[in-house]
Amino acid sequence: MKKVDDMQAQIPEHVSITLVTTMHPGNIGASARAMKTMGVKQLDLVAPNGFPGAEVTARASGADDILAQVRIFENLAAATSDCGYVLGTSARTRNIRWPLISPEQAARQVLRQAHAGTPVAILFGTERTGLSNADLELCHGVIAIPTNPGFSSLNLAAAVQIVCYELRKAAMAKVVTTSTPVRATSAATGEQMQLFYQQLEQYLRDVGFYHPGKPRLLMRRLKRMFNRIQLDQSEYNLLRGILAAADKAGKDNS
Amino acid sequence: MKKVDDMQAQIPEHVSITLVTTMHPGNIGASARAMKTMGVKQLDLVAPNGFPGAEVTARASGADDILAQVRIFENLAAATSDCGYVLGTSARTRNIRWPLISPEQAARQVLRQAHAGTPVAILFGTERTGLSNADLELCHGVIAIPTNPGFSSLNLAAAVQIVCYELRKAAMAKVVTTSTPVRATSAATGEQMQLFYQQLEQYLRDVGFYHPGKPRLLMRRLKRMFNRIQLDQSEYNLLRGILAAADKAGKDNS
Repeated sequence: MKKVDDMQAQIPEHVSITLVTTMHPGNIGASARAMKTMGVKQLDLVAPNGFPGAEVTARASGADDILAQVRIFENLAAATSDCGYVLGTSARTRNIRWPLISPEQAARQVLRQAHAGTPVAILFGTERTGLSNADLELCHGVIAIPTNPGFSSLNLAAAVQIVCYELRKAAMAKVVTTSTPVRATSAATGEQMQLFYQQLEQYLRDVGFYHPGKPRLLMRRLKRMFNRIQLDQSEYNLLRGILAAADKAGKDNS
Repeated sequence: MKKVDDMQAQIPEHVSITLVTTMHPGNIGASARAMKTMGVKQLDLVAPNGFPGAEVTARASGADDILAQVRIFENLAAATSDCGYVLGTSARTRNIRWPLISPEQAARQVLRQAHAGTPVAILFGTERTGLSNADLELCHGVIAIPTNPGFSSLNLAAAVQIVCYELRKAAMAKVVTTSTPVRATSAATGEQMQLFYQQLEQYLRDVGFYHPGKPRLLMRRLKRMFNRIQLDQSEYNLLRGILAAADKAGKDNS
């Protein structure tokens, strides 16, 4: 069931991850990998350092199709010229006076815009200093990635990973019809569980495990415990088999 | 308003990120950085390759306090011996038959357990192959990180980043302290569960329940089942008592 949701989750190709003046080529590769694991396809680079290059490819770790499709722009204005919805990102939100939204809210908003046909760009600033005020002026809002106030130094590709992860979650939420996992084999029925408990109780009597005054309390505790497992059919059969073997072992010896 | 939440968000120190036989030292450093950005403090390493080392420190990018506090273990059983709640992680869930939960659900569950005083470990497997079946046998559940079915190759530190991000989100949300009731007694530890499984296995040998060719398969199924219960101390004592009584019944008669 998980697989079906995963398969159906689609993030439109006109949602771009846009890296602005990235300094370390490895971060471009790692971002491509992060995007691909979550099914995000379009990577745009603004005045990148060291692209293309061996380190980019190495860190992309197989996300070659994303690297092959990269679009390179001289400046951010050019990169966002056809976009109808642009979001910045920041892990340090103290001095930012743009409207702040969480990655989760942003992901829903991005998909809403994209599904309405609007090209979207999500911007990630340069490693040390993030997006400049000039960059932010092109944004409709800023994604505030929650971080430890004492250490907000999120790696660039890690920030891309978080945002793309939320995009995937949002895309999956759209197609999810059922949420509870389907087990391989069906659950043990109430009737079966009663039979199991009767067998267990009989066995515990036989081996003298009963607390003399409190037989009910013991069974209640055991039922509460075994009910938590939610046995499936094969597990049910296994436990009944063990009880039968234990019973037989006692009787063979007598 | 955002800042206040960030300041208040606390992830207890007895929530460990446990990296199992990591091959690339850089990933250890990047994981420490990912943890610190989200306020997660305890990093445990099982038989790591190249720790400590220059690459670890470089990629940690200032998360030196986390590296200084790292605990190193020879094997996973030792690393989880005091843990009452253990979760594995996987980006490839096709063949895993453990109970699967989303990172979001897992984060809430982890904080609930941790706030009740239970030491928690979240396990991340080795780079190429992830957690082994033997590793999973120590787990109460597995976090399924949603990924593109065509490319689920999530970087190790990126997986740590996603899980820690969800922990931070859960810590920031107010829902954490309420909802499900806290158990009266504390959870059985990993070490206790190992003792229980040893006793159970010995008993099953004694009564001849073992399928001759497949002793491991049987124990794996039983572990998966009993781990789902998440025994508390009194239930643990109860089950050990029943096994002792069953054992005695067999021997008295012989």
